[in-house]
Amino acid sequence: MPAVDLPEIEFWFDFGSTYSYPAAVNIEKLAEVHGLAVKWRAFVLGAIFQEQGWPDSPFNIYPLKGRYMWRDMERICQTQDLDFNRPTTFPRNGLLAARVTSAAEGAPWLGSFVRQIFTANFVLDLDIADIDVVRSCLEVLDLDPNPILDAAAAKENKDALRTQTDRAKQLGIFGAPTFISNDEIFWGNDRLGQAITWAKRDA
Amino acid sequence: MPAVDLPEIEFWFDFGSTYSYPAAVNIEKLAEVHGLAVKWRAFVLGAIFQEQGWPDSPFNIYPLKGRYMWRDMERICQTQDLDFNRPTTFPRNGLLAARVTSAAEGAPWLGSFVRQIFTANFVLDLDIADIDVVRSCLEVLDLDPNPILDAAAAKENKDALRTQTDRAKQLGIFGAPTFISNDEIFWGNDRLGQAITWAKRDA
Repeated sequence: MPAVDLPEIEFWFDFGSTYSYPAAVNIEKLAEVHGLAVKWRAFVLGAIFQEQGWPDSPFNIYPLKGRYMWRDMERICQTQDLDFNRPTTFPRNGLLAARVTSAAEGAPWLGSFVRQIFTANFVLDLDIADIDVVRSCLEVLDLDPNPILDAAAAKENKDALRTQTDRAKQLGIFGAPTFISNDEIFWGNDRLGQAITWAKRDA
Repeated sequence: MPAVDLPEIEFWFDFGSTYSYPAAVNIEKLAEVHGLAVKWRAFVLGAIFQEQGWPDSPFNIYPLKGRYMWRDMERICQTQDLDFNRPTTFPRNGLLAARVTSAAEGAPWLGSFVRQIFTANFVLDLDIADIDVVRSCLEVLDLDPNPILDAAAAKENKDALRTQTDRAKQLGIFGAPTFISNDEIFWGNDRLGQAITWAKRDA
């Protein structure tokens, strides 16, 4: 069964986004069960926040929302038996990891890489903007990091990520994670199941 | 089995809040199935938004969020076979209906009244700030509206609603609907199931 025939679910995420972490852990398994192909769409959420007048994560700007989110993340990860440690820096800059994701579109190891980066940020409390951290996330998958990091740093790839963030804006995306399923937007980790079902509506 | 013995779930809502509508329709049935008592906690969400620097609903201030919300509400109501018509005015002022809710604490008809008001706003597109609309929501339940509206308008009751909104702030509530279950906050209609489960944790 060639992957090209499967209905798709687009997963739009930022590596600094807390709720993107459980979604990233779960989406590939769920998609497989339901016969869907995952399209990994990293983007720069900060650029969208800035257009809404937020120079920082709304979880930092609005302390009540922030306090709730951290407790909510604990509960979600406990329920799912998922390791979670509140990062000492939030939000972390996921630009480099997003560039790797963009450069590696279609690679069979991409889902594993995405999960490694989220684990680095939200379990190991590592600075995912540090190229050595990104390098180790590739090495642990038995990949040679150098050609991948070179491709990530190429001008065409930087432009491709910028275009992808622009596309997020055009799609009306305002937060992460967001799923695009059958041309409709579903926002938030707790909508993953609904987005999966929606992808199969006309299938 | 006296109601006083049941574990409780607090339902914090504003009659102008879209996502409070499906929660209000479902919570009493769900609570009954799970052996919980619902505490109806109307409050003035606008007062909390103002403290966060929002003079209007964030769904009006941030058009992307607003556009998503209206489509999301359609999907939710379709899935649940719930009538829904986008109100011509949003958000509507639910102060009078909230005062009735506060004055009627513990009344056996309170859940039915709450649902009547939400139906007036989100199905019939009526101005729920109009005393005649509130009156008709009481009459349809075979209640005499006059003593209830008098109690709602009494100074002590107006003060009680103000105190309730202050309590919402102290609890860290920043949106509606919010559920308080076993001393924890759950925000959003899609967390109703989780909040119900949480209420029974130590039961």
